Amino acid sequence: MSSRVVYFNGQFVPESEARVSIFDSALMYGDMAFEMTRTYNRRPFKLREHLDRLYASLRLLEIDCGLSIKEMERITSETLERNLPTESADMDWQLMHDVSRGPLDVYRTAFPDGLRPTVSINCWPLITHMGGFAPKYTSGVHVVIPAQQALPAHLVDAKAKTRSRLHYQMANLQAARMETGRWPVLLDPDGFLAEGPGWNIFLVKNGELLTPEPRNILLGVSRATTIELARELGIPVRETNLGRYEALQADEIFCTATTYALVHATTFEGQTIGNGGPGPIFNRLLEAWKSKVGIDFVAQAGNYAERLPAWEKTQANGSK
Amino acid sequence: MSSRVVYFNGQFVPESEARVSIFDSALMYGDMAFEMTRTYNRRPFKLREHLDRLYASLRLLEIDCGLSIKEMERITSETLERNLPTESADMDWQLMHDVSRGPLDVYRTAFPDGLRPTVSINCWPLITHMGGFAPKYTSGVHVVIPAQQALPAHLVDAKAKTRSRLHYQMANLQAARMETGRWPVLLDPDGFLAEGPGWNIFLVKNGELLTPEPRNILLGVSRATTIELARELGIPVRETNLGRYEALQADEIFCTATTYALVHATTFEGQTIGNGGPGPIFNRLLEAWKSKVGIDFVAQAGNYAERLPAWEKTQANGSK
Amino acid sequence: MSSRVVYFNGQFVPESEARVSIFDSALMYGDMAFEMTRTYNRRPFKLREHLDRLYASLRLLEIDCGLSIKEMERITSETLERNLPTESADMDWQLMHDVSRGPLDVYRTAFPDGLRPTVSINCWPLITHMGGFAPKYTSGVHVVIPAQQALPAHLVDAKAKTRSRLHYQMANLQAARMETGRWPVLLDPDGFLAEGPGWNIFLVKNGELLTPEPRNILLGVSRATTIELARELGIPVRETNLGRYEALQADEIFCTATTYALVHATTFEGQTIGNGGPGPIFNRLLEAWKSKVGIDFVAQAGNYAERLPAWEKTQANGSK
Amino acid sequence: MSSRVVYFNGQFVPESEARVSIFDSALMYGDMAFEMTRTYNRRPFKLREHLDRLYASLRLLEIDCGLSIKEMERITSETLERNLPTESADMDWQLMHDVSRGPLDVYRTAFPDGLRPTVSINCWPLITHMGGFAPKYTSGVHVVIPAQQALPAHLVDAKAKTRSRLHYQMANLQAARMETGRWPVLLDPDGFLAEGPGWNIFLVKNGELLTPEPRNILLGVSRATTIELARELGIPVRETNLGRYEALQADEIFCTATTYALVHATTFEGQTIGNGGPGPIFNRLLEAWKSKVGIDFVAQAGNYAERLPAWEKTQANGSK
Amino acid sequence: MSSRVVYFNGQFVPESEARVSIFDSALMYGDMAFEMTRTYNRRPFKLREHLDRLYASLRLLEIDCGLSIKEMERITSETLERNLPTESADMDWQLMHDVSRGPLDVYRTAFPDGLRPTVSINCWPLITHMGGFAPKYTSGVHVVIPAQQALPAHLVDAKAKTRSRLHYQMANLQAARMETGRWPVLLDPDGFLAEGPGWNIFLVKNGELLTPEPRNILLGVSRATTIELARELGIPVRETNLGRYEALQADEIFCTATTYALVHATTFEGQTIGNGGPGPIFNRLLEAWKSKVGIDFVAQAGNYAERLPAWEKTQANGSK
Amino acid sequence: MSSRVVYFNGQFVPESEARVSIFDSALMYGDMAFEMTRTYNRRPFKLREHLDRLYASLRLLEIDCGLSIKEMERITSETLERNLPTESADMDWQLMHDVSRGPLDVYRTAFPDGLRPTVSINCWPLITHMGGFAPKYTSGVHVVIPAQQALPAHLVDAKAKTRSRLHYQMANLQAARMETGRWPVLLDPDGFLAEGPGWNIFLVKNGELLTPEPRNILLGVSRATTIELARELGIPVRETNLGRYEALQADEIFCTATTYALVHATTFEGQTIGNGGPGPIFNRLLEAWKSKVGIDFVAQAGNYAERLPAWEKTQANGSK
Repeated sequence: MSSRVVYFNGQFVPESEARVSIFDSALMYGDMAFEMTRTYNRRPFKLREHLDRLYASLRLLEIDCGLSIKEMERITSETLERNLPTESADMDWQLMHDVSRGPLDVYRTAFPDGLRPTVSINCWPLITHMGGFAPKYTSGVHVVIPAQQALPAHLVDAKAKTRSRLHYQMANLQAARMETGRWPVLLDPDGFLAEGPGWNIFLVKNGELLTPEPRNILLGVSRATTIELARELGIPVRETNLGRYEALQADEIFCTATTYALVHATTFEGQTIGNGGPGPIFNRLLEAWKSKVGIDFVAQAGNYAERLPAWEKTQANGSK
Repeated sequence: MSSRVVYFNGQFVPESEARVSIFDSALMYGDMAFEMTRTYNRRPFKLREHLDRLYASLRLLEIDCGLSIKEMERITSETLERNLPTESADMDWQLMHDVSRGPLDVYRTAFPDGLRPTVSINCWPLITHMGGFAPKYTSGVHVVIPAQQALPAHLVDAKAKTRSRLHYQMANLQAARMETGRWPVLLDPDGFLAEGPGWNIFLVKNGELLTPEPRNILLGVSRATTIELARELGIPVRETNLGRYEALQADEIFCTATTYALVHATTFEGQTIGNGGPGPIFNRLLEAWKSKVGIDFVAQAGNYAERLPAWEKTQANGSK
Repeated sequence: MSSRVVYFNGQFVPESEARVSIFDSALMYGDMAFEMTRTYNRRPFKLREHLDRLYASLRLLEIDCGLSIKEMERITSETLERNLPTESADMDWQLMHDVSRGPLDVYRTAFPDGLRPTVSINCWPLITHMGGFAPKYTSGVHVVIPAQQALPAHLVDAKAKTRSRLHYQMANLQAARMETGRWPVLLDPDGFLAEGPGWNIFLVKNGELLTPEPRNILLGVSRATTIELARELGIPVRETNLGRYEALQADEIFCTATTYALVHATTFEGQTIGNGGPGPIFNRLLEAWKSKVGIDFVAQAGNYAERLPAWEKTQANGSK
Repeated sequence: MSSRVVYFNGQFVPESEARVSIFDSALMYGDMAFEMTRTYNRRPFKLREHLDRLYASLRLLEIDCGLSIKEMERITSETLERNLPTESADMDWQLMHDVSRGPLDVYRTAFPDGLRPTVSINCWPLITHMGGFAPKYTSGVHVVIPAQQALPAHLVDAKAKTRSRLHYQMANLQAARMETGRWPVLLDPDGFLAEGPGWNIFLVKNGELLTPEPRNILLGVSRATTIELARELGIPVRETNLGRYEALQADEIFCTATTYALVHATTFEGQTIGNGGPGPIFNRLLEAWKSKVGIDFVAQAGNYAERLPAWEKTQANGSK
Repeated sequence: MSSRVVYFNGQFVPESEARVSIFDSALMYGDMAFEMTRTYNRRPFKLREHLDRLYASLRLLEIDCGLSIKEMERITSETLERNLPTESADMDWQLMHDVSRGPLDVYRTAFPDGLRPTVSINCWPLITHMGGFAPKYTSGVHVVIPAQQALPAHLVDAKAKTRSRLHYQMANLQAARMETGRWPVLLDPDGFLAEGPGWNIFLVKNGELLTPEPRNILLGVSRATTIELARELGIPVRETNLGRYEALQADEIFCTATTYALVHATTFEGQTIGNGGPGPIFNRLLEAWKSKVGIDFVAQAGNYAERLPAWEKTQANGSK
Repeated sequence: MSSRVVYFNGQFVPESEARVSIFDSALMYGDMAFEMTRTYNRRPFKLREHLDRLYASLRLLEIDCGLSIKEMERITSETLERNLPTESADMDWQLMHDVSRGPLDVYRTAFPDGLRPTVSINCWPLITHMGGFAPKYTSGVHVVIPAQQALPAHLVDAKAKTRSRLHYQMANLQAARMETGRWPVLLDPDGFLAEGPGWNIFLVKNGELLTPEPRNILLGVSRATTIELARELGIPVRETNLGRYEALQADEIFCTATTYALVHATTFEGQTIGNGGPGPIFNRLLEAWKSKVGIDFVAQAGNYAERLPAWEKTQANGSK
């Protein structure tokens, strides 16, 4: 079986070569925009929406990546095509786009081919992500509020998906101290719920779906999908200010992100939400999501979980 | 002439191999602490102070790099020693330390040797930095206030020198729009002067040296050196709140950073400071600095500027 | 005529015994949730809504009072039943629920029966409240903005009705200094109108009813009733940011609270609102309210005012 | 052996009668100022300083308690004298002063003797507090930063020691969720360390004692004592902005409060401080404190810890 | 041809006499409300709306100007009538209302006729404003974000159109430094787009018209007209939080103000918006505006631009 | 007796002609810097300090007034000389400097002599100010905290003495509503005491003089004089954060300004300060001030008060 390749600045290179120079602005300043897309049945889900957001992030950063969005779309497909054969046919993939401004001018002599933006696209089989995540579809997650707060948009705008996000890592560390497996939801500068590191939050109250205003948060593609599915199901949706009080009064709470789509919260700040299991609105949305993408990705995750140890062994051998 | 090498996770590798995996937390989250040290006469200046700060940054980030500070010091020396022969004897160097948490666990199979922090130390001849900078010792710089503000310490603490600092890059872009060559000084959350991207600011008023409180800023080693020299010269120093008003009333303004030590500001927000040239206190500090490090680094920079085109040509050849 | 009794931790005790230990968390930390409900024609008005809010407050405080909401409802009815005979048949009542976490553990030896939450329910004849309030239905009230501001929800959430609300008392004191009888409306952290100490504010502009967003305020049951009545009457209602400017431009301003339902503001910050009397929308809402509760509570208040001196004399005798 | 008595509005009453009416402003609004003083060798420590602060709190609350500070001092002594015989001669005491504005006017008929401020003084044997605390002198405490923040002084001033402090209770609950026994230090509105619920924080760095500016915190009597002792010992002290970064860089961290005087922090945000034990400056201050009060209160606490179970049994019998 | 006259405190005086005493509160405190109205075909456009806002501003300032709004309307008409003959029949006019509290009491002896509010109304031929502005209808404007921010409404409310607006002037100066002709849009206290100095901002995204919430901005009459026209044209309109990100993602951006009605932005923060020219929605609104006022004011401006030099010469002669 | 003249743009004109065009930036934007200086014994007090501050204000506003500070000083003297003969020899004077950017360019045709900054200097006999103020030297003033807050320096810097200060007028109106004669002290953005409209505040506590940090306030010349005198008298002075709590704990409070020098506060927020009269430190400073300026200006004010009615009559006649 062949090995994974990565698109890197116009070429396809082995994954182990997908590395960024220490003189690159990406490392120097966290100055890199990125996207995470996943496939369902090996077809990218909402790739165009992800690329639109990538280009919006690049525009905020004032980076011209040198590729049109159509070209980027095409190269993404090619990257996926090249990697598909490295896994069995039931494997779905994570696609990651990374674009930086490129190396700093002062180090130009180290780049005899000239300075230009760094563009990479890689594919990763979802078996590690989803195999590890699988138990959470049953157990749910524990959401907590850490001391670390979200950044106000006018300082660093979460709408642009960039790599300058150490504060997410800090929130993760603080939540882990509460008890392994806790998920932190950051408060925004006004003290309302913003988002988790890489995920959006939804509340259900009296049959209505509530989610924070699109103010100091990433406008998640999964968030948009959830709103879209809710509208199709006739579930009212409202974007509004939500705080600790509203969360504790919610009938259901759940989180959304590209990889796992959506997962319910069992507790919020240590207190049980609803009966602790997935609620009825969550369940309707989950089923609608499965229908939309044409695959029971929860079952798939369970299957991946079982196969994960064997798969890891293969990789270890392969890397020799 | 041999080529530069970089210490990278326990080995010395060619500089072109000093690259970081796209799965590393450094790139994923801007989750990397770093330091910039320079040599004067090929001896690192205040290396221990820089390493102390590196370890303070790592502690805030909760990264254990696996090396004691003494070991790090020793390896730094060795890295420098290995690189010295690649340039002529009058070349001074920039030393850069980069330490990240290492690759994310979910990508562990890509790292058959196991996950561990990424530690790199590289040396770069100062001829590009200082050769390019040389004219500024004469012309001074133009300091402006951009719309981009500094981050409050409790959100992302500037005292920890990390790579999650896209806001510095944004400030640079905004300042550049005002006119190429403008240097942005960011306001802190209270509206007072904080720092530039990578440099600290000093004002002189009635013979007293003023600089922002150590509140939402990096505690620059050059800032500390400036204060130390001022005290030796009997110049009073005060850390206090400084705003646009105070800057416009200053007799002198200057900036400090590791590479160039200190440079005077000709204008602030478009208005001439003093007579537009370096002021008397600045000059005294500059001379004291030269004495302390035992080299006229301003003259050195001028010399580098002359040799830079030829040197670049050598590098181009060397890289073939 | 018998004397009033209070439900106190599972028992009915004489009102004079309804006291809380100095070692109780209620006193130690202001750590007590409460509710005020009133009767109309001796029937509690929206008791369930008040109890829902009580349990929401308790959940935020992480207090388990040991009673289900149904049990609380039943005990409330019983408490009222036991007190009704102490007054004539035309007396309406205030019901007050108080629930604290109970005594602090360190003082446990003072509580040989064990530590548990403190739960009390008391009834108070409305003759003192409404007899004293009666003239305001005619004169209206004077609303002013004090220096004391509301607390942001993420610090102390006004949505939870707790006893930790000294800032309301401070606002009352400041308003009183402006001139006895002034009613303070606190500004929220963004500088918009929040609420008075124990009441919500409404503006009328061009036939539309406006009230602050449910952001940093108590979600008053009377506020909800007012919105509900307005909708029934076809009066448009909007929750939005309102400041000094909007208040001064209002055609009508009025306040709502459990005891008096609603009262119009004659002036705002010393300037006459409308013609200084109750406005047409206010009047429609007042009439709708009377219909809903089946009693002209304004007339009732006037009647109480006349009877108050005699009633007070009775009480003085009774207490001997 | 006789029973404890409490001074309550001009009379000495049995402790079990020391209860506050539910109609009192203390309960209605958290509108009560208080003080905690302790004895060393049965003599109150810095009683005058505590009473000065009590009267300062009352002045902010605009409560005239009806007693001069001298009278309050005298009554305090008498209260202590009356309670001393209830315990053996080696028992030290906590003195608690509680002063509220008294019952609300609208409930005046329930108070036939008239409305006036509620003043109470009680004594509690320190065996429960200190017996329970004793192990912490050895183990130290774990300081963490909760999501709950301190209130800005202009909203509710922590300098006035009042009962409207639910946010302290919330901080305690959040810290407990991290792991039982964690002590929360609240961040102030600028994101710097403020104080714990009822205690002040000190850092030691390079032989200097650092503590937060007296800005949004209670000016603890123990804080003042610590500063005073440090000055006597020639240890430099500085009040300044301190954040997470500074705490993690500290050589020592400790907490001060009336009951236990001072205790060292073993960890801060989960990371070991110094070698995890009490540091040299802490130890010098602890010894100086013992000398000043003439008793080894650490040994005393250990002694109390041993006697506590037996003592509790006595109380249980006594209360029958 | 006769000369322009100004209504000034009850009299019509030559324009050169329309000056305000240095002892007037208008100059002492920037304590003056004002309005700018323009004519189309020599008829004031939305005069009543402007006067309503003037009186709203005066109410916030607690100034009673001594004239009813009807009287003010009548005097405005008379002022215009008196000035119309001074220019040719195709001249349109700017009407400016200025009302202050009048001279300070301490200088009363300098005003033997007594102290009273200062009320003035003047007319100015639009040839200078619009002749100078004409090229911008074609070139568009360059919108930038300066460091100067808008004031929060609770400190100084932009809804009241007053003369205390130095911060607008500062924003103008800062924008000019970026490059002559840049237009500054100030960020509000939450970091969202507020307004320019004297103009409102609109974005178009996916066919929808977006503009900042009416929170910390002047509620421009032209802003209201734009919204009104959009609704007539079936273009959806939404008031919401808009930041740098949203502006850079906009398909169109334009500015509105009384004098020029509306003008498109070619760039935002240096990046081209749409194709750099006026967008389709902008064009539809512009045409609708022309229809509404019955004149092609863009053509008129071009005509004024041509005539401006000659007209200026006339004025110079006239003033001799 | 001749009449007062005003320096106005290079000429001396009768006071009644000292008026500013409605097209001047001073009126359009509150875009004018100013100074108030007074004479003692007909000699300006600290004129140079006032002019230094005027030029600092102008620099912040980026106005070049066209005169050197020496020229301004000379013209000021001449202006005073010309006005001295209009009053008896015991009259002291207020000198007011007003400098604006001049008329807006768009109205240039109304200014045939060209556009240039507007510079005026006027003299006013202090009999009206000080005659009216005289009783306050005995009665003291009542200081209160209004809802209106000070502006943060980064929005509009109080250090620059400009005419864009409507918020001071609003504070005056709010304080007046509390009771005529109350003096408002504005809170700064952090909730600490800033300044009154035109005056600075001082507290005395335990023999130490305390005054707000020079952060969001005007750096009053009288404030500086007070600090200078205190130092000469050996009274310790500290600039620090001061709030409501500190003010209520102060032994003395007083206010300083150019006209009256200093006056004590009898009450703060309605509560008596000290014994309600001037305190010992205040008295020492007052005597030192009198010595410094060589005149008992308190007695002078009393004398003016007696003569004021007659003087006013003279003015009325003179103006006929």
